Amino acid sequence: MKEINRSVVLQSRPQGTPSVDNFAVVDRPVPEVKEGEVLTRTLWLSIDPYMRGRMDDAQSYAPFIQIGAPMTGETVGQVVESRHPDFVPGQIVLGARGWQTYLSSSGSELSVLEDKGAPWSAYLGVLGMPGATAFAGLRDIGKPASGETLVVSAASGAVGSIVVQLAKQAGAHVVGIAGGAEKCRFVQEQLGADVCIDHRNVHDLHSAVAEACSDGVDVFFENVGGAIQHAVYPLLNDFGRMVMCGMVAEYNDKQPAPGPSLFATIRKRLRIEGFIVLDKPQNFSEWRDFATPLIVSGQLRYREQLVDGLENAPAALVDVVTGKNHAKIVVRVADPV
Amino acid sequence: MKEINRSVVLQSRPQGTPSVDNFAVVDRPVPEVKEGEVLTRTLWLSIDPYMRGRMDDAQSYAPFIQIGAPMTGETVGQVVESRHPDFVPGQIVLGARGWQTYLSSSGSELSVLEDKGAPWSAYLGVLGMPGATAFAGLRDIGKPASGETLVVSAASGAVGSIVVQLAKQAGAHVVGIAGGAEKCRFVQEQLGADVCIDHRNVHDLHSAVAEACSDGVDVFFENVGGAIQHAVYPLLNDFGRMVMCGMVAEYNDKQPAPGPSLFATIRKRLRIEGFIVLDKPQNFSEWRDFATPLIVSGQLRYREQLVDGLENAPAALVDVVTGKNHAKIVVRVADPV
Repeated sequence: MKEINRSVVLQSRPQGTPSVDNFAVVDRPVPEVKEGEVLTRTLWLSIDPYMRGRMDDAQSYAPFIQIGAPMTGETVGQVVESRHPDFVPGQIVLGARGWQTYLSSSGSELSVLEDKGAPWSAYLGVLGMPGATAFAGLRDIGKPASGETLVVSAASGAVGSIVVQLAKQAGAHVVGIAGGAEKCRFVQEQLGADVCIDHRNVHDLHSAVAEACSDGVDVFFENVGGAIQHAVYPLLNDFGRMVMCGMVAEYNDKQPAPGPSLFATIRKRLRIEGFIVLDKPQNFSEWRDFATPLIVSGQLRYREQLVDGLENAPAALVDVVTGKNHAKIVVRVADPV
Repeated sequence: MKEINRSVVLQSRPQGTPSVDNFAVVDRPVPEVKEGEVLTRTLWLSIDPYMRGRMDDAQSYAPFIQIGAPMTGETVGQVVESRHPDFVPGQIVLGARGWQTYLSSSGSELSVLEDKGAPWSAYLGVLGMPGATAFAGLRDIGKPASGETLVVSAASGAVGSIVVQLAKQAGAHVVGIAGGAEKCRFVQEQLGADVCIDHRNVHDLHSAVAEACSDGVDVFFENVGGAIQHAVYPLLNDFGRMVMCGMVAEYNDKQPAPGPSLFATIRKRLRIEGFIVLDKPQNFSEWRDFATPLIVSGQLRYREQLVDGLENAPAALVDVVTGKNHAKIVVRVADPV
């Protein structure tokens, strides 16, 4: 009945852009379930840009991954066997279980999901970390008011696509930035952004953003960094907020590139603030409570890119880090029983 | 009885560092006092770094000064003649009356000072804009907690010297940065900083700050920019706050120099925020109420550099902008009658 426990481990640290050669597939026996433990099987694995950072041995908000250890990652799993009072076989659980097919654990990292009509994979994207990130970043830092202008980079991505929709709900003029015509169509036509700028197809990004933001920029939800940051930053209005969520364009840089002059922060009273959604665990439950009905009713839109098989997770992460994915990637590891 | 009205006007815009040639002294008749107006005579004029910015015709939080117009500036004055119900001759008033000996105005920019035992000139420095700036920046952005480490640049200056003392009162480990041994002695021995680093006399500023901040930096009160900013920024701890108050080292740059990479703002959840004390007029009264008794009792220390005569204000501003002053400069324009 039980199978092998397959995991994908970090085999070497990348120099710059990671490749699939930095990973290895390792098969081991499925772990024993000790008293007080619960054995769970992975159904879905989330692939997210932050994983790139964990592959380095640099100081970060989370411990880096040791060579030979499984990659970390959020999963939806199912209870297979339980010697823990809080879990029974068949339950669906959410937790950071890593890139492996089975995990036996104390269950402290798991929360049981109730079936409220949303697809299980949604709990890794729109209802999971990316969605909660958009929600918390806007609520705590961005605070777009009706009539204000919000710019979001990587607007078609897992975080950006929720930022666009929440900012529109708040009454803001929303300008997305994305790479490619197809992504921009999605952002404008499906998500409802007022404008979406294809940064791969403009002569001068700064002018394009300036034209789309005739009243300047009040909130810049920053997912990308690099040239996009340098184009948008000078357009911030007095009392503008810069929500520092990600700088995926610079994750592979060996040395940090210079940023914009901070002089403008004084003159314009800017607030530039970074955050990590994990710092406040209640972000997740608050967002799920708010967003699940909107997902079920179709009011909140999202898309996923499905990848089949745990062994294809490394290539998926490389795609995410290099911007080749067209949507939030979830890896289908197994079907529920 | 009445004298001429002497003013110092902006004669030309500086290219880079200003010089006294950018100013001209102009003598005119003392203005008529119309119905509803009050004529005030300047006693003390404040010289502050922000004035450099007003000399350019660049967009700023305040309108720039027109060529031929008197420089703007905070003053303590005395009512000479009044055709306004709220003012009587002899009253001492605080207000942005500019670089001139007399002003006839509606009085809306003036507040009457009561004699609470503090010297009148103190209302331009420790009890005025610089003091209120230190107060508001720490209360609203820096928020140093007991046991945290705070670094302040230009620590012997009008703002920095108050930051040092307020942060010590809050229980922080306080590291000042100043230029020159005399300033550093003042910061350590008179203001009570735990350490003061002479940035003109260290081999490697980054290492010197790192050594003085063995637990990293929780609050960086930024008055200077440039090399000091680049040395301190990498030492910020998780959830560090950077109070963007001034960047005097870069005020004369014709093009803004690059700043630090903002990538760290995400990883460390930094908050970088600029502010202008004038945005909240209550900052001034709240600070005066809090600080006046501490000035009278000697618990809050400050020093002033006196300059005699309005015609010497331009040289004083050049000194401030180039860091040649050793303390807050106030110009004695006239004595009260």
